[in-house]
Order: sequence, then C-alpha cells, then structure tokens
Amino acid sequence: MPSKTTTQATTWSHQSSQPPHQTRLIKFQNCSALQPDGSLVDNFCLFVDPSTGKIVDGQHAFYAQSIGFTQVVDLGGHLLSPGFIDVQINGAYGIDFSSFDESDETYHLAAKNYLAKLDEFSKKILATGVTSFVPTIITQKASSYRKILPLLSPRSRKGQAHSLGYHAEGPFLSPDKRGAHCVKLIREAPRGIEDIEEVYGKGESGLDMQGAVKILTLAPDVRGVMEAIPELAKRGVIISLGHTNSDLTTALRAKEKGASFITHLFNAMESFRHRDPGVIGLLGDSDEIDFEDESGMTEDSPWNGGGTKSNEGGKLSKKPRPYYGLITDGQHSHPCSVRMAYSCHPEGCVLTSDAMPWMDPEKPDGIYDWRENQRVVKKGYQVTLEGTTTLAGSVVPMDACVRGLSRFASIPLHTAAKCASTHPSRMLGLDKIKGVLQPGADADLVVLDKKTGAVLSTWILGEKAWQRGGDA
Amino acid sequence: MPSKTTTQATTWSHQSSQPPHQTRLIKFQNCSALQPDGSLVDNFCLFVDPSTGKIVDGQHAFYAQSIGFTQVVDLGGHLLSPGFIDVQINGAYGIDFSSFDESDETYHLAAKNYLAKLDEFSKKILATGVTSFVPTIITQKASSYRKILPLLSPRSRKGQAHSLGYHAEGPFLSPDKRGAHCVKLIREAPRGIEDIEEVYGKGESGLDMQGAVKILTLAPDVRGVMEAIPELAKRGVIISLGHTNSDLTTALRAKEKGASFITHLFNAMESFRHRDPGVIGLLGDSDEIDFEDESGMTEDSPWNGGGTKSNEGGKLSKKPRPYYGLITDGQHSHPCSVRMAYSCHPEGCVLTSDAMPWMDPEKPDGIYDWRENQRVVKKGYQVTLEGTTTLAGSVVPMDACVRGLSRFASIPLHTAAKCASTHPSRMLGLDKIKGVLQPGADADLVVLDKKTGAVLSTWILGEKAWQRGGDA
Repeated sequence: MPSKTTTQATTWSHQSSQPPHQTRLIKFQNCSALQPDGSLVDNFCLFVDPSTGKIVDGQHAFYAQSIGFTQVVDLGGHLLSPGFIDVQINGAYGIDFSSFDESDETYHLAAKNYLAKLDEFSKKILATGVTSFVPTIITQKASSYRKILPLLSPRSRKGQAHSLGYHAEGPFLSPDKRGAHCVKLIREAPRGIEDIEEVYGKGESGLDMQGAVKILTLAPDVRGVMEAIPELAKRGVIISLGHTNSDLTTALRAKEKGASFITHLFNAMESFRHRDPGVIGLLGDSDEIDFEDESGMTEDSPWNGGGTKSNEGGKLSKKPRPYYGLITDGQHSHPCSVRMAYSCHPEGCVLTSDAMPWMDPEKPDGIYDWRENQRVVKKGYQVTLEGTTTLAGSVVPMDACVRGLSRFASIPLHTAAKCASTHPSRMLGLDKIKGVLQPGADADLVVLDKKTGAVLSTWILGEKAWQRGGDA
Repeated sequence: MPSKTTTQATTWSHQSSQPPHQTRLIKFQNCSALQPDGSLVDNFCLFVDPSTGKIVDGQHAFYAQSIGFTQVVDLGGHLLSPGFIDVQINGAYGIDFSSFDESDETYHLAAKNYLAKLDEFSKKILATGVTSFVPTIITQKASSYRKILPLLSPRSRKGQAHSLGYHAEGPFLSPDKRGAHCVKLIREAPRGIEDIEEVYGKGESGLDMQGAVKILTLAPDVRGVMEAIPELAKRGVIISLGHTNSDLTTALRAKEKGASFITHLFNAMESFRHRDPGVIGLLGDSDEIDFEDESGMTEDSPWNGGGTKSNEGGKLSKKPRPYYGLITDGQHSHPCSVRMAYSCHPEGCVLTSDAMPWMDPEKPDGIYDWRENQRVVKKGYQVTLEGTTTLAGSVVPMDACVRGLSRFASIPLHTAAKCASTHPSRMLGLDKIKGVLQPGADADLVVLDKKTGAVLSTWILGEKAWQRGGDA
C-alpha cells in the first residue's frame, strides 16, 4: 500500500495576490489579451509578481512602474491567453496515466517511476499550451485504483504544467456505451455512495482520496449512481455525465442533482433524437423555471416544457445547463456538429484533447502496439484500431483543438482559447486562480501566434517554461 | 381537363405603393410593432393606403395627416406583426387540399366545389393569424395532380387569406422516409426535369402550371432529382429538402445546386449523427468558403472542413444555409430540440403548422375518420393513428406555434412572430411585398395580445378580416 508521504502534493501557491514590499514585477507588454469576459484587448500590459507567480493589478503595477521591473517581456503583438486546462487527458508522449508498472520490485519504486513519468509528461505537454491538466484514468481493476489514485493529488513542480487531481472515467458506466472500457470491470453501485467510496477510496472526511479526486464520469442510468450524485457534489466532486444510455429525462434529473459536465459530447451516449435528444439535449435545456401556458400546450405535450425544477427548501430553483467536453480534432465529430453544439451553448464549451499515450506531434504516422493483441494505426490526427475504422482515442494536441474550434465554429482564435482556459477553470470552480488574466490568478500563460494560432511560448507562475524553437 | 378560365388568379395588388391623390389613409396607432430587422418599436404608427391595401411611408403619411384619415385604428398597446405565412399546410377545418371529390358529375363542378372549400378555409384560417399560405399537396396519383394543381394558382379574395401557389410534397421522395406518403405513388426521376414536368405539368415557359408552383419538397438522394435542382431553381421554384435519406454530403451538394429550404426539420429524415449529421447538419454549415489549415487538420479529416464550394464561372462561391421548417406544437420535436435548432440558425427558422384537415381549435378531442380503414385520435395538439403512438400530422394553429417557439426557445413573442412572417416571406423571395411592415408591402397584419400572444385581429390589405369575439 502507498505510504502517506508519497501522496504529498505541492500546491501551486499559498501566497497572497498582494504584491510584496519589494515591488519588482514582470511586465508582459505588446500583446492582445483574452479578458475574463471573453473580449480581446489590444496593447495590453500584464503584471506578474515573480515571488508569488500571481497576476497583480494595475494600481500596484503603476506604483511598481516607478521603481522598475525585474523583466519586461515583449510579446511581439501576439495573442496572450490564460494557459490551457485539459480536463480529460489519458496520457501522451508514450505515457499512459492508467498504466502502473507492476513489475517493479516494490510499490515505492513503482510509484517513483510513475511520478517520474508524470513529471516528464508535465514538461512535454507545455508545448501544446497546456499549463494545467486533470489526468484521466479509464476503468481499472480495484487494486490498480488503490495504487494509482493516491499518486494523483494536485501536483505543481517548477517548469511543469500543474496536475489538478484526477478524473476517473469509469467503472460506473453503462455497458452499452462502454466504448473502449473493459466490460468485465464495469460495475453498478447498488449501495450508492458506499460502492463509489469502495472504488475511489474514503479519506477521513469521506470520499477524497487525499484530496486527489476532481472529476468522476458517471452514467446516471446505472443502478445506484443517481442517488449518489448529491452527496458527491456536496463533497466537491465534479460529476460528469458520460458513457451512458440516459434519456433526456434522466439526464435532466442528474443535472438537477448536481452533475455539471458532459464527457466528450456526442461520443459514448445515445444519439440526438428529436423527440428525446438524450444527454445531448441538455444543451437545449431552458434556463428558466417551467411556465404555465394558456394554450394548454404543456398539458398536451408529452414533455414538460423542456425544463425541470427542483424544490429545495420550499423554493423553486433550477440548475444551469452543464458544461460539455468537445474534442475538435476533425475526427470525433463533424465540423457541422461542432458548430451546432457551440451555437447551442457557447458558454458551456470546454475543449478536451482526450489524448492517448500515442499523442505526440513528433511521433510519425505508423502502426503502434496498444493493449494485449491490439495495435493502432496513427495517421495524422486519426488513430484507429488496426484493420478497422473504429477510432481508438485521440492524438490531437490542445492547441490544435483551439484552432479546430475556431475554424469549425467560425469564431475568433481568442474565443476558442477561452473554451480551453476560462471555461474549464469555471467548470472546475477554479476561476479565481486559473484560466483568467486577472489579479490574484496564477500567471499560467500561453502566447499564441496571432495569425496561425501556433503556441509560441508557455509560462508557469510567471516563468517561461517552454518556447518555440528552443529551451525555455 | 381544366379550362384556362378556372385557373385565373386574382393577384393581391397591381397598384403602386405611392399614395393616390386623395390622401385619406388608415392610421394604426398605439402598438408595439415588429420591424424588418427584428426589433420591436413601441408607440408605433403604421399608415395604409386603403385604395391599394399597401403600407405607405411616413413622409406621405405626414402630408396625409394634415388632411385627415379614413380611419384611425387604436391597437390598445398590443403587438402588431406582419400576418403569418404558412408555407406547409395540408388543410384544416375539415378541408383537405389533397382531396378532390371525383363523385361530382363534371370537372367544372368538382373544381367549383374545391375552390369553394378553399375560400372557406381562407376565411377560417384568419383566426390563427395566417394571412398567406402555400397549400400543400401530399403524394398523389398523376391524374389527381392534373386536376388539383391548376386550381392552386395564387389567389386573393376580399376578406380572405392569400393563397400563394402550391407546395407539392412528393412524389419524388425516398421510400425509407416516406412517412404517411403512399409508397406505391412514390417515384424516381431517371429523366430528371422531364419526369418532374410530367408530374407537375409544363406550361408555355417550362414548369409553371400556370404559375401555380411555389415549393417542391424533393429528396436529393432519389435518382434524377439532384440533376434537376439547378433547372428548377432557375425557373423560380423553391426547392425544399425533405422525406430523404440524404447524408450531409448529399444535402450540402443539393444546397449548392439551389435547394433553399428544409421540410419539417427532424421529421422524415436521417437522425442527427455527430459524424454525419445529415440534412440536419446543414444548420451547422459554415458560411465561409473552405480554408486551408497549417495544422494539416483538413488533410487528415474525413470531412472537408464542414463547407462546400462551387466554382461557378471560375469564381468561388458558396450558398447560404437553407431555411428550415419547424412545427413547434410540443409534439413533433422536444422543446430542447427546438431550442437547439433555433440557436444554431435563428435567421433560418420558418414556423409551419403542417396542419391536417382535423386542425380546428373548435373541434373536440375524439376519434376521427381519415383514409380507408384508418382513424385518428385527436387529443389536444396530439393526433395519433388509432391504436398506435404514431403521430398523424399536426393540428396546431400557427398562432400556437408562435407561442410555442417563444417559450421553447426562450425568445420574445415578436421574435417568434418574425419566424412566422418575415422569414417565410424571405424564403419565398416575397419580402418586398409580404411579411414586413414597410412601405410598399401589403398591409396583411395580425394583432397579438402582448401578454398572452392570442390573436386579437387579422387584417387583409388594410381591411379587418377577423377579430376575436366577433365578426370583422
């Protein structure tokens, strides 16, 4: 079993957003910058306190300006965005977060090797503009969870993307929509939260796995799951609907109980059918409480006005539409489908790579080994199981997803970048400290070529951690 | 065969939009009015020249104001909208446009009876806010077309809604998606335009049936149809895609060739599938010509960037997304689906009732005879084939569709009214004379209760033709 020390996380910053007395700041200038409200401001200046790694406000900066800067960074007129946050990524560069090498002599050694690979990943992923990620574990046997999950507490290392805690996809999935998940390991939760704790662990204050859990992808149509959602949400877990057979009614109920995300929209769920659009239909849910209608249409309609309502504490309330993950690699969904989803609910769009271990822009096209007796064919951004046309995950880097969304949905690059930064941080409830260029937030930044959208440099807590064409 | 005289149409106005020398106008005042740009203007005044039935502009009205008005109409602060235009309506009030009574002794007598029913319909439909309609004929045997279609030239009678020419749905439909259409009468068009002329007739200047044809619903996957689209479009026929198995590629091609409408979106077409969203996917088509991409995404993608391009005369061009018909009766599509479609392409939304003969708000719920050996069960706005849950058309009045869209898509009443007036007139290419409150257009008007959306009065060419609670 893992020792407590192995799971110790380094948090990214414990310090205040106030600048210290020694007012030597970093000034980023000559850029167009994405604002928290989605607008783009030209000739923007961003001030960062290098001692905290945080963005500081203009007034403090003004005071500092009279004293001098540690560094002035000229961004050449390019686009400055908060760093990308990938909330669903299975691995990349040959590293698989779900794989734990059992051949090592001791758990301690295996854990060390696992974390060394995590560090390697956390450096390499910077080239894609990602500054934070939620490592995603697909359905495993119970013993593997106990070995891997304690290693995935939030983790921040100098010059590396931050790991924010894990995203477990499975095992509480609908067998019909399991996708690449192992059917033998998929299970129900007849005892509700107890079954869920059995899988992911139970810390002193309930389900927390040393604070490591961030997102659980669950199928609300699986026995016991729906009942467990309110308690999980109360404990701060993000509940994402995915790999599910749910109809719209079930999906709406899960949303009201606290589900706030949809895992890889369109994939591994019922298709959109116009009289029961299923989980996809959540994008068309009303933001309003149900209404009465003089025409009697509600009465006649088989549906209750497209909305649901919950009666909490005697007061009618309604949860907002969930965020939804989109993989805009030009493979997983048709560009027209991407544009339609985005049009329906632009503020909910969260780009995810869903990348697999063979994601590596340097990796040539070819045939690669995967699991026992399976190989995959990689061709550009397409990966299929050998001998089939079945997609075997994604190999798209996040920066290409941003360019893909910009093109498919006909939106400006900075608007697409918001779906890879501000939206995921809001979805995770971290938008005070991540995914926004505002005082108090971490200075995790990505600079994109304003014309091509290519990543030019990536910054962690105000320090350059990667740049195109050379070491940081 | 019909004689020429039977088919003589009365056009709604031959006169100029200039006010005559006797400047006595009708002034509609104290209303909030829907503008051509979709905005709502409070305390609006509308001036109509009773001698032409047309709206006249403010300057002329100012001159007239100093002389006096024929009539001042106070609208009590309610909503003034252009009258509704229903481009897909099969009948109502017991009248079926596709039914021609063969028992009459002579064609002349049968035609007279048919037109008497059309007149009856054209009066009764005013109660639903409809001031123009395109009578819709479902798939018939060839001899019936030859009898019915010549009777459906544009027709305007005092105090009646205008009939704008016919909409023929079928027989060139995909058998798999025929819905309630008779499979034996469905056909292909191996000789292209010749087969189409064989069905609908060929006037002196090609397909025109004395100018009666307005819209043809066609399945572009049916042999010979795709090739005929450009010629039909050239002759001024609106091509609508419907009852079709088309994939998105076929649908995009049909659009580029000239199809500009989608018949009852979602119904009688392939479901939306995210990797091939079919005809529905046209709502997510790009408005831009295809782009090149430095990332190689286009190259790898199985789809060509979500757009298509046509090379006409050596110049790249692209057709806009088509308009699409929506039946917002709370039965045909889930409210969430309606909101999603509307969000994707608000400017393309055209409300249609697709009403069947048993549409009549006065008609009680019950079981009614339809065709041979078939009966339908009417319950509120739901009509099903007896003993099944299969919908058998619609019984929703247009004004309820407007209220339904307003509610389902969370848009103001006047914005929904635009989808029943301005949008269909634009789709038909009639937006200089119908569906807009602007000088030169026909004063076909509907006044809606600003709170409930109920129809308060309906006006044809500036004359009150219907009012709630009494004769006009």
